[in-house]
Amino acid sequence: MFLKRIFTNALLLPMSEEDSPVFQGAMGIEGDRITYMGPVPPAEQLETYDEVIDFNGKAILPGFINTHCHAAMSLLRGYADDLPLKKWLEEEMWPLEARFTQRQVHAGTSLSVLEMIKSGTTCFLDMYDHMDTVGEVVTEAGIRACLCRGVIGFGSDELREHKFKEAVQFATEWHGQANGRITTMLSPHAPYTCSPEYIRQFVEKAAELNLPLHTHMSETAAEVQQNVDDYGVRPVEHLRRLGFFDLPSLVAHAVHLTDEEIDILFEYDVKIAHNPGSNLKLGSGVAPIPKMIQKGIRPSLATDGAASNNNLDLLEEIHLAALIHKGVNEDPEAVPAQTALRMGTIYGAESLFLEGQIGTLETGKKADFITIDLTGPHMQPLHDVISHIVYSASRSDVIDVYIDGKPIMRNRECLTLDEEKIRYEAIQAFQAIAK
Amino acid sequence: MFLKRIFTNALLLPMSEEDSPVFQGAMGIEGDRITYMGPVPPAEQLETYDEVIDFNGKAILPGFINTHCHAAMSLLRGYADDLPLKKWLEEEMWPLEARFTQRQVHAGTSLSVLEMIKSGTTCFLDMYDHMDTVGEVVTEAGIRACLCRGVIGFGSDELREHKFKEAVQFATEWHGQANGRITTMLSPHAPYTCSPEYIRQFVEKAAELNLPLHTHMSETAAEVQQNVDDYGVRPVEHLRRLGFFDLPSLVAHAVHLTDEEIDILFEYDVKIAHNPGSNLKLGSGVAPIPKMIQKGIRPSLATDGAASNNNLDLLEEIHLAALIHKGVNEDPEAVPAQTALRMGTIYGAESLFLEGQIGTLETGKKADFITIDLTGPHMQPLHDVISHIVYSASRSDVIDVYIDGKPIMRNRECLTLDEEKIRYEAIQAFQAIAK
Repeated sequence: MFLKRIFTNALLLPMSEEDSPVFQGAMGIEGDRITYMGPVPPAEQLETYDEVIDFNGKAILPGFINTHCHAAMSLLRGYADDLPLKKWLEEEMWPLEARFTQRQVHAGTSLSVLEMIKSGTTCFLDMYDHMDTVGEVVTEAGIRACLCRGVIGFGSDELREHKFKEAVQFATEWHGQANGRITTMLSPHAPYTCSPEYIRQFVEKAAELNLPLHTHMSETAAEVQQNVDDYGVRPVEHLRRLGFFDLPSLVAHAVHLTDEEIDILFEYDVKIAHNPGSNLKLGSGVAPIPKMIQKGIRPSLATDGAASNNNLDLLEEIHLAALIHKGVNEDPEAVPAQTALRMGTIYGAESLFLEGQIGTLETGKKADFITIDLTGPHMQPLHDVISHIVYSASRSDVIDVYIDGKPIMRNRECLTLDEEKIRYEAIQAFQAIAK
Repeated sequence: MFLKRIFTNALLLPMSEEDSPVFQGAMGIEGDRITYMGPVPPAEQLETYDEVIDFNGKAILPGFINTHCHAAMSLLRGYADDLPLKKWLEEEMWPLEARFTQRQVHAGTSLSVLEMIKSGTTCFLDMYDHMDTVGEVVTEAGIRACLCRGVIGFGSDELREHKFKEAVQFATEWHGQANGRITTMLSPHAPYTCSPEYIRQFVEKAAELNLPLHTHMSETAAEVQQNVDDYGVRPVEHLRRLGFFDLPSLVAHAVHLTDEEIDILFEYDVKIAHNPGSNLKLGSGVAPIPKMIQKGIRPSLATDGAASNNNLDLLEEIHLAALIHKGVNEDPEAVPAQTALRMGTIYGAESLFLEGQIGTLETGKKADFITIDLTGPHMQPLHDVISHIVYSASRSDVIDVYIDGKPIMRNRECLTLDEEKIRYEAIQAFQAIAK
């Protein structure tokens, strides 16, 4: 028997195709699934629920989905800011990250998961190292995640083969863990850190294991040029030739694209993780999102690691996605508020190949949802709820978080993680490697 | 005798020229002035204060300064979103605003001032109508403001003359009111809404009254072209010829500028109110802020009205200013975090010609300051406080607000305004004109 809960007196924003807000609505769940969406039922039906929770006018919407992150990097938040990507990565991030052990990954990932829960993210993709530790944090925190061991292909053949096996073993062992909250992908880091042969090895294994692929692609102009210099083609054609796009695949960034490349990505149904905050902060550029959307691509949103953002607030990415493309294209109709909110919810689910489970609030789907307080002065008058959430709300307006039907945050208190302990351990874990 | 207060155990971010953060610092005030900045004094000195307040590790910094706003427009927040500026203004905003009476201005301005206080703004410039009402709200709320009756020069000669007199009378009567917290400017709305003769009239009166001038300038490409069509020159040269820049003057937007125009603005020491959120959302474009800064201009930050933003959160403008110019110029060193924070504080004070009074925390200046909580997961580890405030903090991290030495918000509770009443009256006031 599953616990039956109903949440009443809520403004429902299901984000499904019709997605008209329902005022004074109710959502019923049974165990981890949504079983009812609609007006508040009469008293005799309410009595069939184990728990009736009055949401007192708050909005209910699907939890945010962050489709590209390196959670453990929050330990390096604000460390060596405002440098070019190559220099920042090679001279600042990688030397410190080389000192990361399980301890740093546990501390950094715990800090990040806490931050994500407190800003309404219910599912995130993580690409990093020491992924068993990440899987443990995800299990404990109650969050949903798509995890992949991100593999940089430098070094000896032995090292490369070792990392490949590690990535495959992790993906095989953890897929479906934590009541199905964890799924996995295979992830060569990028065309500029992995040889074509090495990428090909991942593609073949992903086909064999029926797993999706994830990688960084076309983040900076320099990296695109390097691909042309090294392989004679731009990254999209490069990955296409390697068979990457023949499988379900998700690429992060996709900032520097020609119109022809957008056509190819659409044709192969390649999923896009748009990282507006990180792309702006690192000076990488502004991805051609309006062109992608016009073509029919449904890009999702992501924070990237906290070291390049510098936070993991998906609501801010939604806000940025709705703002920057209007300004850069001098087109106030680019990426309307509703589209930006879909990018952060249902398009995110599609990018992780989980749209049958999450991303909208519909009966039969997993009960992954958040509530948003609508009473702050910045939310008045309430002309247009979606506009207010996208353009005016901030992370602290997220009040409750439920994942798999379980309360993970209530009234801004995280129920699964110890905030003070996580803060302390993050500081200690950084100091241990900073010297 | 003035009340002597000292705030201890704080991380001081004075934002003065040296501006190195002081850990475990203290700030003493006497009445409305700062009298001490430095380490926590010994017990016998603490005893000379009437009140010792332990800030428990929070950061103290100058309050944010919002140099261009139309506060009453918050009543129209989220109303008719995502339209081009001209259509949005002429078909949606102006017809509704024409129905605004004192009641709407009181309700909308109160809502906006509440929102600004709750996001750490201690001083704002307001350009609107029914300015006596705005002055009353400012007086009651305890905030600091630079107020101007924004005059659109359409209609009959009589109407224009009436508005001119009203603007002059307001500026004369209110300058220096509310213990000096209110200053005034004269403000013809824009070159595209005011004839050259009419603008000239304001310039002459401002010279006579020794008041600064404020206007909208070069917000959209279309408006610049219209100026060329109507007057044969672009707006900067147009205003220069009208003598506008011979007086202390502040222009809002300055999005579409040539290099020569930037040179002129620098040469005449014209102050700039950069409105990144509004410029992005309305699709107006991205102002050439890095070029301005390189030239030596010190642009300030502003929200514009809530109808085009859609909030009045200056911390978000600081964040946007630090992000968007890096991305658009593909230069991660454009507008460093420290510069963005100065734009929101001391450069704002300079833009309102109040840098002798506010904008930094230095002995002798007015005690306008805020505290920021540094304990949230998004603020860990605390490698770089300024980076974290600029790139990661959000409005809810602002905990206390003091203006003129008086507590205006304590532990996120506004002490001078009734939040519930303001919310109720805003909704009622909008409904009265919506029909």
